[in-house]
Amino acid sequence: MTSPIAVVGAGLVGAGWAIVFARAGHDVRLYDGDEKIRATALDGIRANLEGLQSFDLINDAGAVADRIAVHGDLASAVAGVSYVQESVFETIPVKHEVTQQLDEACSSETVIGSSSSGIPASAFTENLKGRSRCLIAHPVNPPYLVPLVELVPAPWTHSGVIDSTFELMESVGQSPIRIDREVEGFVLNRLQGALLNEAWALFEEGYASAGDIDKTVSEGLGLRWSFMGPFQTIDLNAPGGVSDYAARLSPLYHAVAESRTDPQRWSDALVACVEHERRQHVSAEGLKDRREWRDRRLMALAAHKAKASKKLGD
Amino acid sequence: MTSPIAVVGAGLVGAGWAIVFARAGHDVRLYDGDEKIRATALDGIRANLEGLQSFDLINDAGAVADRIAVHGDLASAVAGVSYVQESVFETIPVKHEVTQQLDEACSSETVIGSSSSGIPASAFTENLKGRSRCLIAHPVNPPYLVPLVELVPAPWTHSGVIDSTFELMESVGQSPIRIDREVEGFVLNRLQGALLNEAWALFEEGYASAGDIDKTVSEGLGLRWSFMGPFQTIDLNAPGGVSDYAARLSPLYHAVAESRTDPQRWSDALVACVEHERRQHVSAEGLKDRREWRDRRLMALAAHKAKASKKLGD
Repeated sequence: MTSPIAVVGAGLVGAGWAIVFARAGHDVRLYDGDEKIRATALDGIRANLEGLQSFDLINDAGAVADRIAVHGDLASAVAGVSYVQESVFETIPVKHEVTQQLDEACSSETVIGSSSSGIPASAFTENLKGRSRCLIAHPVNPPYLVPLVELVPAPWTHSGVIDSTFELMESVGQSPIRIDREVEGFVLNRLQGALLNEAWALFEEGYASAGDIDKTVSEGLGLRWSFMGPFQTIDLNAPGGVSDYAARLSPLYHAVAESRTDPQRWSDALVACVEHERRQHVSAEGLKDRREWRDRRLMALAAHKAKASKKLGD
Repeated sequence: MTSPIAVVGAGLVGAGWAIVFARAGHDVRLYDGDEKIRATALDGIRANLEGLQSFDLINDAGAVADRIAVHGDLASAVAGVSYVQESVFETIPVKHEVTQQLDEACSSETVIGSSSSGIPASAFTENLKGRSRCLIAHPVNPPYLVPLVELVPAPWTHSGVIDSTFELMESVGQSPIRIDREVEGFVLNRLQGALLNEAWALFEEGYASAGDIDKTVSEGLGLRWSFMGPFQTIDLNAPGGVSDYAARLSPLYHAVAESRTDPQRWSDALVACVEHERRQHVSAEGLKDRREWRDRRLMALAAHKAKASKKLGD
């Protein structure tokens, strides 16, 4: 028996979460205050479920869709649920208002996880009665194809809340990580940002085209990183493991860091250059189709990873 | 008709290059000055070719192996070849000595590419008569599974040498990129270093375990990056493309950069912590097997990417 889950906000992120929980067997109550969004949410979900089925990632798209019910009334959506995944528009006032409503509507046992990608929970839960049951559970988009979830407590989040959310996320097939305390960008966007900042700087200084920098990742670094993290990778890149690697290469990496102690903003002119280069490959009108292509590639990759893990191990 | 290629140095990197060129139909002359290395080089190559065949990445391992001849005489190895891939031990004196020998032994038309991962060509080719035909062609390991090759000119490298090496690399199925001029770490290791430096800092400050930082990449960022680069990725992560993304998120990434303007070295104590954490998962004695596991996963991934590209497009 799995308990029902409420997802609050039926946009792209919320609809993705509904798939995650329903796929794992939970009944999902998908709430949105906007009638227009409610009217079309299930169509988008069904299309994505059919995609998942076509890649053998689920067996029965219809059965999964049947576990998702769209709600227009918040109180009935959250009645009796053990977990709410809040996925509303990401501004502090909106997060604050919705989380306050949730804190009032939910039973005191219910955990409230926010999909916030940047705003920490302390910025919108401080004055809530039930603030200790609030945390960030930040997914990657779309969460049913990229399993990482960052769990970030506010200073007042109860440790048991982190533990139970960690277990829930693992039980539905996600890959949760525990972040000790709030930090700007959490872990995922800090790692992405570090690489992006270097990429923009190399482009700005004329060392390589944006396309060649992209290739360095998509035909180089990204292959190993699709199944091993950065520490696991370097652990295998020197005969004696990570400490051997550090002895050989940390001076180089320190020099790289020392060359970037005066970070520049991504200038408008620079962004316009990359925008122009990208639009040669994908038109502005074509971005939507390109996102669908990316999701199909992610589906194929998810199917591949499941097979490779089974056959070759992790 | 493809012309013969010489690979100088039959260690791990050189043996990998021999596979790349022979797989594409070139006769390969694999030179090493060390009799012991010569004696076993082909055994390792054959084992890797059988692995490639088991993943349907090549049709006939024996035919590929038959195109590789091991040489103990440099002059005969390079006679009449249009390209030499130098892959000797990476110190300036060794690179300098071998490249000087090559410059004397090769016809004036032969291009000499170095596998150097860090030492720029200007550090060991300046005083050579044929310095304009020397460049860096830095692979990722193993090159027959990770196609990226960084082409980096010295200030005196002839532009036609870059062009012809670019064409050669594409013709054998690699993914070459052009780097405009020398820069410490080239592009790949600068991008890797930026992410690694942030990873070490987050670990040092106690935000997350090394295992959770690894997961952030292997179950998060690395999935998209296995088929799209960083610019291609963010181009799809905001409705209006890369400029829309920059408008929304560049302040966050600038703040990340501003928080790292006093870069610390990877301290011995810190490295020892990660070494200890890694050894809980893979023993020191198990690293060799783990590298073989990684290569099998890379083979499976290469087969997957080829299929996904064909079915879904790039």
